[in-house]
Amino acid sequence: MADRSADIEEGLTFTPNFDSNGLVTAVVTDARAGDVLMVAHMNDEALRKTIASGEAWYYVRSRKTLWRKGETSGHTQRVVELRVDCDQDAVWLKVEQAGEGSCHTGRRSCFYRAVPLRKSGAVTLEFRDADRRFDPKAVYK
Amino acid sequence: MADRSADIEEGLTFTPNFDSNGLVTAVVTDARAGDVLMVAHMNDEALRKTIASGEAWYYVRSRKTLWRKGETSGHTQRVVELRVDCDQDAVWLKVEQAGEGSCHTGRRSCFYRAVPLRKSGAVTLEFRDADRRFDPKAVYK
Repeated sequence: MADRSADIEEGLTFTPNFDSNGLVTAVVTDARAGDVLMVAHMNDEALRKTIASGEAWYYVRSRKTLWRKGETSGHTQRVVELRVDCDQDAVWLKVEQAGEGSCHTGRRSCFYRAVPLRKSGAVTLEFRDADRRFDPKAVYK
Repeated sequence: MADRSADIEEGLTFTPNFDSNGLVTAVVTDARAGDVLMVAHMNDEALRKTIASGEAWYYVRSRKTLWRKGETSGHTQRVVELRVDCDQDAVWLKVEQAGEGSCHTGRRSCFYRAVPLRKSGAVTLEFRDADRRFDPKAVYK
């Protein structure tokens, strides 16, 4: 166990640690601005296609399908760098986002609301960078 | 369904969308440098404690315990901003990382290896920003 853990953490063999659903977590940041655009999931095939093509592919859990990001919207993601974490159950994609945004709601990032900190009681979110860059109804016909 | 989805995506009520294990995904970036430090998970209690204290708390799936980041190492994380994504199943923490690193292997970030892109065949990882900032054996006695 210790040896296997050492291999996974210190080795140079890529052995993705898929969960019981066959997925790893994918964190996507804008290669230039550095902010987090979205969090998605990848199965083995999505990972292989991403590595081979340099374009981001994901796995959609709700639809149980492979998804080439931007196949409907045109908002593809060119992967500038792909990294894997210590225990190999998460990957980090630095991407060049085509088009105006990565979120299906029309925003640049999916993270357009902040949770106030150091407060007790009910939590009310606050919009941040929440302006719409595109009209979802026009893009997803 | 459409209305509920609209509430979750466009509303200001914080309604974390916990998975079947009661967890949301937490992406952690360095508030200053902007790079991804780690990916972890939070249950309802970890989320509440993080919001109330402004210090990062997680849930460790392998040990099934709550974890105040830095409780052993001293490498605590002060949360500068907490955001939630469109469907409220992931949060993004921008943190000030105390100490030399966030990864238990001694690195600054857990993402210290890159996956080469646009290549076929076997994948060999490449170390990136992989220098050790602290000695794990000394820190985790």
